[in-house]
Order: sequence, then C-alpha cells, then structure tokens
Amino acid sequence: MTAVPNRVLLVEDNPDDLELARIAFRRAEFASLVDVARDGAEALDYLFAQGAWAHRGSEPPPRLVLLDIKLPLVDGIEVLRRLKGDPGLRHVPVVMMTSSAQDRDLSACYELGANSYIVKPVDMEKFLAVIQGIGLYWLVLNEPDPDAGRVVRA
Amino acid sequence: MTAVPNRVLLVEDNPDDLELARIAFRRAEFASLVDVARDGAEALDYLFAQGAWAHRGSEPPPRLVLLDIKLPLVDGIEVLRRLKGDPGLRHVPVVMMTSSAQDRDLSACYELGANSYIVKPVDMEKFLAVIQGIGLYWLVLNEPDPDAGRVVRA
Repeated sequence: MTAVPNRVLLVEDNPDDLELARIAFRRAEFASLVDVARDGAEALDYLFAQGAWAHRGSEPPPRLVLLDIKLPLVDGIEVLRRLKGDPGLRHVPVVMMTSSAQDRDLSACYELGANSYIVKPVDMEKFLAVIQGIGLYWLVLNEPDPDAGRVVRA
Repeated sequence: MTAVPNRVLLVEDNPDDLELARIAFRRAEFASLVDVARDGAEALDYLFAQGAWAHRGSEPPPRLVLLDIKLPLVDGIEVLRRLKGDPGLRHVPVVMMTSSAQDRDLSACYELGANSYIVKPVDMEKFLAVIQGIGLYWLVLNEPDPDAGRVVRA
C-alpha cells in the first residue's frame, strides 16, 4: 500500500450507482481519488485529455477504470475498444460493470481486452461490498503493469 | 455462486506455498477443487490434456490458473505464452504469482495477456488472505468469459 491515493475513473450514468460507488470508495481502507465521467464521450475526453478534460495534459492515466456498458453518447464497449487500442492506455486495468450479463457482451468485452467483468448486485449492501472488493483487488492486491504509468499520448 | 465447485489449477513448485494455498482454498467460503502441477511441463500437460494428464481429454479448462513464474523444466512465462496463444485456453483467467516483482517480468506477463500479477506475501497469514482474495475475486465476483468453457482443443 502506498501513501499516494490511487486515482480511479468511474464511468457511470446512473446517479444512484454513482453515489453508491463513491460511498464504497470513501469507506474503503485504501486511499483513492475517484474521478467521474457520466457518459462515454466524457470518458474518452478524460482518458485522452481532451475537451473538458484537456487540462489533464500529461498526467498519468488512472490506476483503474470502472466502466458501465450502457452509456449515453458512446457506449462502454466502444470506450473499451478505444482504450485498449491505445498504446499508452491499454495497460490500465478495466473492470466492466453492468446490470445484466449477456454472453454477447461478455464475449465482446473480453475479446477487446477487458480485465474483468462484474454484474452489479441489486442489493445496496452487496453493491457496496462488490465495489470495495474490486478496489481492494486491483488497487491493493494486484501489482500494476509498470507500463501503465507511462504517458505515451503526450 | 454455483453449487458446482470451481476447478482451479495451481502451478507451484515450492511445497510450503503449495500447502498454504491448498489450505486457503479449503478454508474459503466458496467451493473449489484444486489441481496441482509442480513444474511448467506438467502444467502444459494438464492444460493441453497430454502425457500424465491425457485422461482429462475433453474436460473443460479450469476456471482459474494460479501460475508461479520460477518453475522447473518450463518457466511460468513460457506456460503463460502457450496458454494465451491457444484459442481454447486464452479465455481462462491467469493470475501470476511470484516472490518478487521485477518490472521486466511484470511487463512480459501483462504483454502476454496475464490477467493479474500478485506478489506473494512472506507472512503466512497474509499469504492465506491473499490466496482467498484471489479466489473470491475470480471465482465469485468476476463473471467468466463464456468462451472459456468451450473446448476447442478436442
């Protein structure tokens, strides 16, 4: 564990899920900063430091991306495709989050390089626990790819 | 969670680590069956159902592979390369486990498609907790790739 908080990008348009996920990260034992994108276009702006997120400039990419599939403007699968197709971003772990697991979505996401795929529990307490489990696994247990910190896009 | 135990392949040559990992899986709340390969050549025999493991025949691949890097006969990185290069096996999640994290190994494993990379804690209780955390994440939280169950090699 490091003293520097881990930066997480949360891509979620459902306000309830968004607030619950924020609570989960706040309550967690590990330190993290959560940035939010509410649709797929904003997620791309964030990841590629453009538009409203142009000020991110040469900041390193987030340590973890939680990515909903059903999103306004650009869907999560397209965001995943762009992210995993970029040499400076593809080393960032991406956890797909959806309300239902359809084989077609699952296959497509894994094929594009999603690191993991989680079905959101309907129960609120379980949802909190799952988000914390995801954070614990990827921010504490897992050793990140050293290439994930390098900014290629700058 | 399903009533059918999840099958895990544990590739480990250190007898102490092997026994601890078995204890961790036995103590876990989720059901799992652990198969063991003690070197990289045996791991390949298991995965490709050949040699001493030819009787596996058309059985589906394991739900999860825990793969040590330093192994006799064939090292873990070569096992990973063969596994992720096979259309019938590449959908199986592989967690690399090593005693030290070297950037060179980390980069190589992620480049070859390792799903995750964990540094073994020296402390025994922590080691048990980490193994259980890995099992919980990949066998309970994560939704597996539907293509991982399909036997292509038969």
